[in-house]
Amino acid sequence: MTTVEKIGERKVIETILKSLVLPRMPIPFGDDVSGVEIARGKVAALKADMLVGRTDVPPTMSFWQAARKAVVMNISDFAAKGVKPLVLLVSLGFPSNFLEKDVRQLAEGLNAGAREYDAYVVGGDTSEAADLVIGCSLFGVVEKRLLMLRSGAKPGDVVAVTGFFGKTAAGLKVLLGNLPVSLGARKVFLDAVLMPRARLKEGLALSRTRTVSASIDSSDGLAWSLHEIKRASNVGFVIDNLPVASEVFQFAKRNNLDPIDLTLYGGEEYELVLTIKPRLWKKAASAVKRVDGSLVQIGRVTKETDVVLRLKGKTVPIEPRGWEHFKSGKR
Amino acid sequence: MTTVEKIGERKVIETILKSLVLPRMPIPFGDDVSGVEIARGKVAALKADMLVGRTDVPPTMSFWQAARKAVVMNISDFAAKGVKPLVLLVSLGFPSNFLEKDVRQLAEGLNAGAREYDAYVVGGDTSEAADLVIGCSLFGVVEKRLLMLRSGAKPGDVVAVTGFFGKTAAGLKVLLGNLPVSLGARKVFLDAVLMPRARLKEGLALSRTRTVSASIDSSDGLAWSLHEIKRASNVGFVIDNLPVASEVFQFAKRNNLDPIDLTLYGGEEYELVLTIKPRLWKKAASAVKRVDGSLVQIGRVTKETDVVLRLKGKTVPIEPRGWEHFKSGKR
Repeated sequence: MTTVEKIGERKVIETILKSLVLPRMPIPFGDDVSGVEIARGKVAALKADMLVGRTDVPPTMSFWQAARKAVVMNISDFAAKGVKPLVLLVSLGFPSNFLEKDVRQLAEGLNAGAREYDAYVVGGDTSEAADLVIGCSLFGVVEKRLLMLRSGAKPGDVVAVTGFFGKTAAGLKVLLGNLPVSLGARKVFLDAVLMPRARLKEGLALSRTRTVSASIDSSDGLAWSLHEIKRASNVGFVIDNLPVASEVFQFAKRNNLDPIDLTLYGGEEYELVLTIKPRLWKKAASAVKRVDGSLVQIGRVTKETDVVLRLKGKTVPIEPRGWEHFKSGKR
Repeated sequence: MTTVEKIGERKVIETILKSLVLPRMPIPFGDDVSGVEIARGKVAALKADMLVGRTDVPPTMSFWQAARKAVVMNISDFAAKGVKPLVLLVSLGFPSNFLEKDVRQLAEGLNAGAREYDAYVVGGDTSEAADLVIGCSLFGVVEKRLLMLRSGAKPGDVVAVTGFFGKTAAGLKVLLGNLPVSLGARKVFLDAVLMPRARLKEGLALSRTRTVSASIDSSDGLAWSLHEIKRASNVGFVIDNLPVASEVFQFAKRNNLDPIDLTLYGGEEYELVLTIKPRLWKKAASAVKRVDGSLVQIGRVTKETDVVLRLKGKTVPIEPRGWEHFKSGKR
């Protein structure tokens, strides 16, 4: 008997997809967000994502932080598609011995996460469950022509990201492995783990410029995000400027870890990974600058469908791996 | 330390509500469905509800049936508000030793539930969880003026339901308590438990007539539904024609059970409970008849805010109780 552990989350989703009758959709199945056309050129965007205590909540994360993170995870997907979130519903599950004061913490975290991005929690439900479950479903409306999908990357496009990577992976190592770290870096890493931020203003600003050919968030890791764009756009990548956060570089050196690994395969980071037409780069970069964000070139889209890292003249493959439910095991 | 078990689901929701900043909403918080105005007079309707294996899936219910039921539960709330469902997202949680073939069963059940009501599953996500979790979030668009809320019941209005009650409660007694039952009734009861149906065509037909002053579905039981309309509309009810299903009456007699109890306090039934202006009754009834449904008068709305049952000249209170998560214990 084949278990889901054996086949992993991606295969599970394939199995599900095979059983579904799909309508015509303005956003392809499997992109970060789902959509339905509600008027000519107007798309209702929907996203549901569930945070489960056992696998998604690291130690030392408070209920307030877990609830806020559950919201931010969903907002990040809207950011990647260029959709302004309006309202969200939350399905909460917890055991019957859960404390009322912890429910209050959860509710305040949900509200904080939503208000941070100008959205509102307007409903939901509660259920009894064996473990803490926070299911968010987010809603917004977007002009179809402003949607940024995974599928439009073209050879020659610039690959860019909205920030530096590896901080969450390093943070989890600090929290779970108790590795030595400078006080300053510790703060940066724990902030990445406990208080992730969605690049919403960057995503909305970029979507309005119509300079982006493909976009995804990096919640399953930078490597995985590149492979997702590859699959959807049928292109490849040469990454020659790996966006390693400086603190991650120091931390890796001190602990004899590979900074490239922490940067590529960490996951649970919420930067945007984008491809942009070279002639539109300035327009894109200045739009992001205007909202106080940053846009870092990390490589190029290629016709060959390989995803590789080119460092000091050496070329190594970037593997299609990252965090995967069922397969990746417990944190 | 106060646990959620002690205070029950309604109080848990009150606690959550206190922590939320709410926007102006076309549908009040706590109604069956949430809404956000997306254009003048147009409301996006959203509903999220989670089915959890341990508490919501009775023995002998297959994964296919559980998944279908998770969809139907949500469709029923749309039916009560007069909203046509368009698409839904599904968040699935299950343990890592869950079987691939059971995932397929779940996916086929989800698809079947959606297609039965002309809706589509267009996305979602999967997570590792200790117990089976099926979180559905449903989306549709409705004209604001066609929404049927809980809050418009007026003294003198007729109270009506779309079918007869007690079958699910009886079915659970048959399944869990192994009580004797005729073969015919057994089929009816198990069908009510395992293959519940949402009164979508009735709800949509009624909403278009604009004859309904208040509406709710009966998923927490007929008694609870009446009390919810009471709270939202600030009215009371005299119920003088209790809609006991005939099989339930026979079953109760045979097993020395109270048919009134089974009818009022059972829950997990998906009839609509409606209030209708008497002069518009004919219009409402014929609209429901045109879609092959039925509409049964069961009593009147009163100015006094009591909810009572009048049977053979005797008046007894209908209590505000029904199925409640955390408090009601395990099934």
